[in-house]
Amino acid sequence: MIKIGLLGLGTVGTGVYSILERHSENLKSKIGTGLQIEKILVRDIEKQRDIDIDGTLLTEKVEDVLENPEIDLVVELIGGEEPAYQYILQALKNGKSVVTANKLLIAKYGPELMKMAAEKGVSIYFEASVAGGIPIIRPLRESFAANKIERIFGILNGTTNYILTRMTKEGQELDIALKEAQRLGYAESDPSSDISGADAAYKIAILSSIAYETVIDIEDVHIEGIENIEIEDIEIARELGYVIKLLAISKFTSKGVDIRVHPAFIPVNHPLASVHDAYNAIYLHGDSVGDVMLYGQGAGRFPTASAVVADIIQAGKEIYHGSPDINGNIYKNNHGIMDISQVENSFYLRLQVKDKPGVLAKIAEVLGRNQVSLASVIQKHRQNPVVPIVLVTHQVKEEYLQKSIAEFKNIEEIVAVKNIIRVEEL
Amino acid sequence: MIKIGLLGLGTVGTGVYSILERHSENLKSKIGTGLQIEKILVRDIEKQRDIDIDGTLLTEKVEDVLENPEIDLVVELIGGEEPAYQYILQALKNGKSVVTANKLLIAKYGPELMKMAAEKGVSIYFEASVAGGIPIIRPLRESFAANKIERIFGILNGTTNYILTRMTKEGQELDIALKEAQRLGYAESDPSSDISGADAAYKIAILSSIAYETVIDIEDVHIEGIENIEIEDIEIARELGYVIKLLAISKFTSKGVDIRVHPAFIPVNHPLASVHDAYNAIYLHGDSVGDVMLYGQGAGRFPTASAVVADIIQAGKEIYHGSPDINGNIYKNNHGIMDISQVENSFYLRLQVKDKPGVLAKIAEVLGRNQVSLASVIQKHRQNPVVPIVLVTHQVKEEYLQKSIAEFKNIEEIVAVKNIIRVEEL
Repeated sequence: MIKIGLLGLGTVGTGVYSILERHSENLKSKIGTGLQIEKILVRDIEKQRDIDIDGTLLTEKVEDVLENPEIDLVVELIGGEEPAYQYILQALKNGKSVVTANKLLIAKYGPELMKMAAEKGVSIYFEASVAGGIPIIRPLRESFAANKIERIFGILNGTTNYILTRMTKEGQELDIALKEAQRLGYAESDPSSDISGADAAYKIAILSSIAYETVIDIEDVHIEGIENIEIEDIEIARELGYVIKLLAISKFTSKGVDIRVHPAFIPVNHPLASVHDAYNAIYLHGDSVGDVMLYGQGAGRFPTASAVVADIIQAGKEIYHGSPDINGNIYKNNHGIMDISQVENSFYLRLQVKDKPGVLAKIAEVLGRNQVSLASVIQKHRQNPVVPIVLVTHQVKEEYLQKSIAEFKNIEEIVAVKNIIRVEEL
Repeated sequence: MIKIGLLGLGTVGTGVYSILERHSENLKSKIGTGLQIEKILVRDIEKQRDIDIDGTLLTEKVEDVLENPEIDLVVELIGGEEPAYQYILQALKNGKSVVTANKLLIAKYGPELMKMAAEKGVSIYFEASVAGGIPIIRPLRESFAANKIERIFGILNGTTNYILTRMTKEGQELDIALKEAQRLGYAESDPSSDISGADAAYKIAILSSIAYETVIDIEDVHIEGIENIEIEDIEIARELGYVIKLLAISKFTSKGVDIRVHPAFIPVNHPLASVHDAYNAIYLHGDSVGDVMLYGQGAGRFPTASAVVADIIQAGKEIYHGSPDINGNIYKNNHGIMDISQVENSFYLRLQVKDKPGVLAKIAEVLGRNQVSLASVIQKHRQNPVVPIVLVTHQVKEEYLQKSIAEFKNIEEIVAVKNIIRVEEL
């Protein structure tokens, strides 16, 4: 019998609890022994819950889990940085294996936590920390173990993908689509971690660490959110054969890991372009396997709980059979992160300019002098004193593009640089 | 050190050999010990090969592998039924674990092989038998272990998907597209197992066995190939908002497993509709995880070898750490297979009829009497004595549809039933 201590009984926690109940016989036959929830840490024992639960399991004292010698496995579903970090660290110190869905902790403290686990001869599992129910951590560590992973593209945040889908399909403005996402439970009341790209950055950092067996300093990941995306950008993207997605990108290069999160134009016929609504997907390239895409629900009670329970089963097997997680240390190297200024991309620029003769020539002169060459120009004549100009550049180092943008200030006819979006041909 | 005997050095065998060479340090660190190829069974030692290989490894005598006490792990890449079956059985009997890419053997003899492995305390691994480089066997057994899998839809044959893609995108006739597939190495010189759907049937049988933990008698799987698909069907599908794919379908029902392979109309906006060329994909639904799709290259030297080597790593770890494959018996049940006559579907029918008044009324009368109701009718008037009529039915039990088709023989105006294709809304 494997005894489990659960930290947290929120959305995912109740999902885990009910899967363990519903599938208990099946899980027992898969592990070779039964699973039993011994204690559940909650904030308020008296709170009304939407599942039937034996009240004696609940506790408000974390020691009842962490210091309980009966408990083999601690499942952390509180989320956030503190106190979750201290709880996990203490569980490992006390010789308990840990399953967690906490992307922030793994992205920020993965090396410390894994080192502690190794010292104590236990394991830490975190399949649910990235892309909910989609199997990706285990495939990266096992199914693609015969590969050098060269690049990963992810749609890793369901909230922003839902918002961009509504903007694209229905022409809704961002703030309307966000309210809709909140109403449907796809977005938190404070959606800033989603909208800003931070949530996706934790996830691509975790995937990169596993894929390249490297430390990734989350502080060095370039992050842009979807705040500035307007319907006009989406419409122009469509005209040019692209859709706009919040893309998490990671490429292994000789100059370090090119890792970043930002909105991107992607070709409309690419499989990632068909990832709609709150779905997530990871599209990766390995030297043997070629291109692979894994697609599914990246969040939600049961998809996330499905991944947590898969980890519980794995942990249970390893505890029962006495063989610890044998995937080894994923933080062997420190390949470093490429500075965004050194990354080459093609860029979409949308400017507002005064409709005067010669303005395009002035813009072209600045770009040309900074080694930025243009792939296309869209200039729509409207009966307005101020008109939009859209430029798409060829591949160019980001620093040259930024230098040009800085120089645009000297062109009096440029009223505003409305948006700059990278174009990923994938 | 884990010592490996390789059976076969064809396309996939050379791929496996070169991955093991190229990634040897990396694999060693993942397993905890090195891998060494001890012997390779080939048909002709003298044959010229496109890889550099130590000639002393090669043998034409299978005993050098199967009876070699040094060898821990046998990797079978010969394919086909015999002698591969005898070889694998003997390897297991001799206490060696086995990795195989042989879908036919697993689909036909899975229960016997797994029983023998269990008796001898060894394991048999077959990730590469379904969908090449796409991880699906291990995810089904592990990542989705907390789920009741309810249905699986697969595009599991790259050859037919390539042909249908060419027909759809370029309007090529089937035989032209097949020749092109052969030229590009996507199709064998004898493509009958692909075209007929048999290859996909082996694969969906394997996936169903794992998903539902049941014996599947491959003889009972309903199989139709793409032989009869014409450009006209593809064009009408497009007009109606569908694309035609060779679909492998498996649904768990209270009346048994509804498992079949046949061409199907699928909605153009479904993720499976965007699986083009020789790519494969598996789209499944689990009660916790919801919908998941796994997409990638289903064949080819390196994608398949990637899956074989992933299995070798797993087997290597389990041999080295002394823990056998602990996934347990996947053939616990015998849920039986639903007879196709009892399956409900919506159908597309394309008929050739004499352009006379009243013909549609006669057809409608036969259908109505047999409980088949129509969702749509397309009748294109051309200046010909014989014209096409396209009918799409509502959901109806297959036996009623077939009874109607049989009765169409009594309608003198029906010149031919050109095609009957099931419509899957997915």
